[in-house]
Amino acid sequence: MLLNCDLGESYGSWTMGLDDEVMPHIDQANIACGFHGGDPLTMRNTLTLAATHGVSIGAHPAYPDLVGFGRRSMTLTSDELIAALHYQVAALDGMAASAGLTVDYVKPHGALYNDMMSKAEVRAAVMEALAAYHRPLPLMLQATPEAHTHRNEAAVLGLEVLLEAFADRCYDDDGKLLSRRLPGAVHSRDKMLAQVAQLQNQGSVTTISGHTLPLAADTLCVHGDNPEGVQAIREIRALVGGK
Amino acid sequence: MLLNCDLGESYGSWTMGLDDEVMPHIDQANIACGFHGGDPLTMRNTLTLAATHGVSIGAHPAYPDLVGFGRRSMTLTSDELIAALHYQVAALDGMAASAGLTVDYVKPHGALYNDMMSKAEVRAAVMEALAAYHRPLPLMLQATPEAHTHRNEAAVLGLEVLLEAFADRCYDDDGKLLSRRLPGAVHSRDKMLAQVAQLQNQGSVTTISGHTLPLAADTLCVHGDNPEGVQAIREIRALVGGK
Amino acid sequence: MLLNCDLGESYGSWTMGLDDEVMPHIDQANIACGFHGGDPLTMRNTLTLAATHGVSIGAHPAYPDLVGFGRRSMTLTSDELIAALHYQVAALDGMAASAGLTVDYVKPHGALYNDMMSKAEVRAAVMEALAAYHRPLPLMLQATPEAHTHRNEAAVLGLEVLLEAFADRCYDDDGKLLSRRLPGAVHSRDKMLAQVAQLQNQGSVTTISGHTLPLAADTLCVHGDNPEGVQAIREIRALVGGK
Amino acid sequence: MLLNCDLGESYGSWTMGLDDEVMPHIDQANIACGFHGGDPLTMRNTLTLAATHGVSIGAHPAYPDLVGFGRRSMTLTSDELIAALHYQVAALDGMAASAGLTVDYVKPHGALYNDMMSKAEVRAAVMEALAAYHRPLPLMLQATPEAHTHRNEAAVLGLEVLLEAFADRCYDDDGKLLSRRLPGAVHSRDKMLAQVAQLQNQGSVTTISGHTLPLAADTLCVHGDNPEGVQAIREIRALVGGK
Repeated sequence: MLLNCDLGESYGSWTMGLDDEVMPHIDQANIACGFHGGDPLTMRNTLTLAATHGVSIGAHPAYPDLVGFGRRSMTLTSDELIAALHYQVAALDGMAASAGLTVDYVKPHGALYNDMMSKAEVRAAVMEALAAYHRPLPLMLQATPEAHTHRNEAAVLGLEVLLEAFADRCYDDDGKLLSRRLPGAVHSRDKMLAQVAQLQNQGSVTTISGHTLPLAADTLCVHGDNPEGVQAIREIRALVGGK
Repeated sequence: MLLNCDLGESYGSWTMGLDDEVMPHIDQANIACGFHGGDPLTMRNTLTLAATHGVSIGAHPAYPDLVGFGRRSMTLTSDELIAALHYQVAALDGMAASAGLTVDYVKPHGALYNDMMSKAEVRAAVMEALAAYHRPLPLMLQATPEAHTHRNEAAVLGLEVLLEAFADRCYDDDGKLLSRRLPGAVHSRDKMLAQVAQLQNQGSVTTISGHTLPLAADTLCVHGDNPEGVQAIREIRALVGGK
Repeated sequence: MLLNCDLGESYGSWTMGLDDEVMPHIDQANIACGFHGGDPLTMRNTLTLAATHGVSIGAHPAYPDLVGFGRRSMTLTSDELIAALHYQVAALDGMAASAGLTVDYVKPHGALYNDMMSKAEVRAAVMEALAAYHRPLPLMLQATPEAHTHRNEAAVLGLEVLLEAFADRCYDDDGKLLSRRLPGAVHSRDKMLAQVAQLQNQGSVTTISGHTLPLAADTLCVHGDNPEGVQAIREIRALVGGK
Repeated sequence: MLLNCDLGESYGSWTMGLDDEVMPHIDQANIACGFHGGDPLTMRNTLTLAATHGVSIGAHPAYPDLVGFGRRSMTLTSDELIAALHYQVAALDGMAASAGLTVDYVKPHGALYNDMMSKAEVRAAVMEALAAYHRPLPLMLQATPEAHTHRNEAAVLGLEVLLEAFADRCYDDDGKLLSRRLPGAVHSRDKMLAQVAQLQNQGSVTTISGHTLPLAADTLCVHGDNPEGVQAIREIRALVGGK
């Protein structure tokens, strides 16, 4: 079980995330590409940091919405979305190559990620973008009961998928994340570690209603926004081993 | 003598330049990379157009100044500038590769071009950026009496240069373009064609004061903003041959 | 029957719309406020042009989406939307006052306009924004069979509404504009003038199925994007009289 | 002696400055207007915070350079600069009025502030902008030995000036701030308080070479970027009295 984390989301003079503290403990860094965060200099510095710690890097493209941090859904046409993805992925790709690194996968950010999971036409455009890129890249998306379908959709285009689960979020019976507005949506430390252990050992989660839901995940999404998040990452790392 | 032209400078719903009419007649397309013009979809469409007409493509990066169209000087640090150049060049590079094309050179845009010609530290940062890019790219800059110096500066970093001259602009005795605010700055049709012929045949221009100034140019910068520009390109093409 | 038109939608070096030719013939100019078009200098120039021709001005705010020209729906929170509206309206308001003018109304642009018409919560936020502005401004929205409801929603907040109809668009039986993707969506010149005459004289339109639909409109939306649009404005002006 | 501080410089999801802790202790809040920081919602929240603490508000406009936080000089034309200033000031002005507040003055930000102090043509454009605004607003600029000249330049246009001094920065013999790259540029706590006391009681500063330089200041610029800055503000407040 790998650990992935969104990084490089500072912008110019504005800092976000404790990247220096997180990078040593993760396997995969999802690096912002300028549309929701991550100005060029931040991208370069984040790539250097990833190289220092031998972390695999992924492009973390978003809708073009700096002020909304890419968290607001936007109705782009497929052509607009594909071009926006190519632009962002290519920008990181060439900068990574210049730092001696290779972009290993793509994980959409924020509202684009959510739209990709919930809207077939957005997911189709994302997959088409990756397939049409000069170097097909695996797509990281959420492990759900529809993972088989998603994997097939990708396979038709010759793409691989990476499935991620969430350590600290409670799942509903459909395999969706419980809305943050509902009680119990975010796990306490103990429940988080229990969920990680269950994901790793049984390949399942216990849903809000107590059911056991099978969930095969390749990687675990963790968060390094604040000291508590960094501490959680350390504990999860200790639990899953590696690094 | 090749012909190069700035293209792909539309942005979203705003159109600029008669790209469809220009592309068939030029050898090198300097394609905007999003910072002064050229949104991702425009970039993709411009690349497709270049491919159709077998035109060599160059990245045309700029200061981050959409509202000023990259025409206003900005005091970026070297690190900021290098990262901004890598970002833009890489974005076009990966999109070009996805269209089956290769970026052949880099020509800075607008105020960045002017600063590169007039400020040694900006030129040094631009060259450092190209040398540090994972795939060193030739730099297109203005043919001036200092061309030898510029070529040497580039050679130290292992870079090639492409020298461009201007068809329709009058030169002063220092080999600079006469300011557009001065009379005689922009040539009439006949003088333009005479200057092109002189550049091609004698490797020189006649300056505003009537002197003959040697100027060895690899490529000629032409403009396709309006029907008159397109017509001028056709006449220059007929004169220099090729395509 | 007044004529309103979207103007001031150029941006920096990019030009859009034949504003100089349109302004003499309209009553109300909906002026872009910087979020989808209309940089500060364009705003200032458009205000001067409106003053020259004695045209009433309205703020034409949008979602923050330059590259999409405000035509893509975005899921802003009510607070985000209200603040974005205040910012744009206030910017134009103070610039108008500095040009000796007064902003007379607000007409949302593009996707924001469409969302306002189709989503009650967006319409509520727009109305709340106008009511909370230090100087309550009338809201221009589309004349539909729900106009009475919209007028009541506004009245509760102490707001007036201005209802606009479209000259060249065919209506469906529900009073919505027929999708541009359907045949007959955009009227020929003769049908356009007939629709204008019917709106003015009978207060109704003939829908795509041939029914007569009552539609009381205060103002008619016209378009000056190209010479054909300008010519249509001249003909509509001749028909409705005024100016 | 009043205390002024730059506030409202967060942007979307990115936070900057300890505004909540600073606002209770200052007299004048220089509020960012969206071009270098301060999205519309941040502006609204900052205005509310200022109202709560009875703080006078000033517009803090900048060059259009989000990624550079307005710290990079840009060569705008006078017309571009005047329009950009009107846009930003007006946006804050109307939002302030909607919060029951009045914008009392304008203090340019970052590189625009520096250019205003060092380049007569930039200062002239800034003053022309304020004079041409529908409601002339005082201009806050740096107290220097040229203050008399600046006051006269403003008076010709019917403008007032507010002169500010810096608490923690060492002055050179010309009355300029010592470059941050030089030793002694930023005062220790004790020297800072001594400088504040000298400014208030003798209307002078002791320069880097030990000379006494007369400096009449209306207000003192303080910084609330971090806990040390907030602590310094508390100590300066205790020294100068008020609030």
